[in-house]
Amino acid sequence: MTKYKNRQWIYSKRPEKLVDESHYKIQTSTTDCSSLRPGQALLKSEYFSVDPYMRIQQSEKETWEEPHPLNTVQGGAVVGKIIGIKDPHSSLQIGDWVVSYTGWQEYAITETQSLRKLNPKEVPVTTALGILGMPARIAYFGLIEAGKPKKGETVVVSGASGAVGQVVVQIAKIKGCTVVGIAGSDEKTTYLKETLGVDEVINYKQYPSTPEIKKELSKLCPNGIDIYYDNVGGYITDAIFELINRKARIIICGQISQYSGGLDNPELGPRFLHKILYQRAIIQGVLARDYNDRMNEMLQEMTPWVQNNSLKYKETIVEGFENLPNALNMLFYGKNMGKLIVKA
Amino acid sequence: MTKYKNRQWIYSKRPEKLVDESHYKIQTSTTDCSSLRPGQALLKSEYFSVDPYMRIQQSEKETWEEPHPLNTVQGGAVVGKIIGIKDPHSSLQIGDWVVSYTGWQEYAITETQSLRKLNPKEVPVTTALGILGMPARIAYFGLIEAGKPKKGETVVVSGASGAVGQVVVQIAKIKGCTVVGIAGSDEKTTYLKETLGVDEVINYKQYPSTPEIKKELSKLCPNGIDIYYDNVGGYITDAIFELINRKARIIICGQISQYSGGLDNPELGPRFLHKILYQRAIIQGVLARDYNDRMNEMLQEMTPWVQNNSLKYKETIVEGFENLPNALNMLFYGKNMGKLIVKA
Repeated sequence: MTKYKNRQWIYSKRPEKLVDESHYKIQTSTTDCSSLRPGQALLKSEYFSVDPYMRIQQSEKETWEEPHPLNTVQGGAVVGKIIGIKDPHSSLQIGDWVVSYTGWQEYAITETQSLRKLNPKEVPVTTALGILGMPARIAYFGLIEAGKPKKGETVVVSGASGAVGQVVVQIAKIKGCTVVGIAGSDEKTTYLKETLGVDEVINYKQYPSTPEIKKELSKLCPNGIDIYYDNVGGYITDAIFELINRKARIIICGQISQYSGGLDNPELGPRFLHKILYQRAIIQGVLARDYNDRMNEMLQEMTPWVQNNSLKYKETIVEGFENLPNALNMLFYGKNMGKLIVKA
Repeated sequence: MTKYKNRQWIYSKRPEKLVDESHYKIQTSTTDCSSLRPGQALLKSEYFSVDPYMRIQQSEKETWEEPHPLNTVQGGAVVGKIIGIKDPHSSLQIGDWVVSYTGWQEYAITETQSLRKLNPKEVPVTTALGILGMPARIAYFGLIEAGKPKKGETVVVSGASGAVGQVVVQIAKIKGCTVVGIAGSDEKTTYLKETLGVDEVINYKQYPSTPEIKKELSKLCPNGIDIYYDNVGGYITDAIFELINRKARIIICGQISQYSGGLDNPELGPRFLHKILYQRAIIQGVLARDYNDRMNEMLQEMTPWVQNNSLKYKETIVEGFENLPNALNMLFYGKNMGKLIVKA
């Protein structure tokens, strides 16, 4: 029976600020099909997701669930291939592509019931981590159900060229909104404007303070802001609160500017709740996991959009299992365009 | 024809911090029924409302509407008696009690269509300014429609013994919630607990920092906080964000701690939007004016509650037209219990 050398990235130390390789250890073991219990499969991991939420779970305090336990394999979504299976009731077979939540390890044994089969003839398998995966799910339901976009409204998206942002801006366009995308480089804003059809863009690095970015936003949003889909937080969000319209909807999907240190000891910022009062606005936090059971609904609508190219996307692929912690770190420097994926 | 000497409080100077008599001038003129045009009535003002929102409108910037214009009569709700009328189509008569929005003047000429007739046999006429007036309307719709209280949930109310708060805590009890009221004196917390039946109370002056009041709130809310009805803002609200439950609803009805200076140049406070994210909470600003057209719906439900004493209330009555600006100032020092009213 073939034995597989299995490297695992073990989360071993809580980060105080940024997370990097120093918070992980690599651990090597072997695995083979003889360990499979009934109902299980052995996967070879091919593509790993790295996501900003991973840093949140590394907080010492409970967030949406317990902190990620130390000295365990870093959790996360993976696209892999079945190389062994012990489940006569499953339709899965050796060679099938699947998406799983088995984390940063080269091989994984998992329950077949937790796997979702992918069809590589339909769309590329990596889409299951990005444009048709968790980031797309929260982009879709967050914008549509919390944002309730109406034709002609102005939608501002921060982190607009990231895994979630690139979906939000396009769905907002499909819904007939005027869309302003905020991102951190000219390459990103060019992508937003020229490839994704975003109406107006802001490279926030050219406007490094609230008054500066507020001035630019005022210029680009002459009718005010009806929806703000926030992935970033911090001084950009402060400027938005000055410009929201009556009955504005502010969707908090991420606060990446705050993840490296500001969670347990929050930064100070201007109090803005009186503006929410004047404008009778709504701020709503949204998490992908709340829409887990509606994945198919999203896939049914969005898979054809990806197939016919009306929903475009970028992936940034980093090669090499050994680069996983560094890839996670890249997110906090905004080094990715679209979904950041590590190829085994 | 009788001539009436009419004193008016003219809003004459924008306050930078607190508002007091120095921001007003008294102006005297005369009025009589000969000035009435068709469709108008002459009122004698008997009871004047003073409300925290008045300070907001004195901001230099637009809030929910244009700033209150300088050198005009201070706007506000008034309960008065009709002493002259020129409208054959109206059912109103001389001697009728009405509520109007004619502001701080002893006599007012106004359109009969803008008047709502009161029945002093049903409930005391002053209730039209408080427990069955604007404060009750936003308490009722804000709690029920934005808060969606469910039996067994924990509801925390700041400014709990004020005009709005005293209504919110009682409706929350009627809806089967556990209610924690926060107010600024032992007299107020005793009223909340012993008269209004609030489950737990906090005199915030005994807990003058976020960690202190958070500790007390944690003790009194062992199941966390599902609904926070906020009239106050500032460090109390900061503590709440640490304790909210999943899918919590935070209703922003007032931010009185911020009105005296912090509106145009907001105070700094800890950023909390990541907590809204984790908990998938909702923050919603609510204003009474958004429910103007549903006044009757509220009155139909709440008038019997007031009549049968299942909805209790306090009014703080200040005597004397000349004390109006000082009475407004009292609100910001928390010197009122329940609705603050000035008797002409």
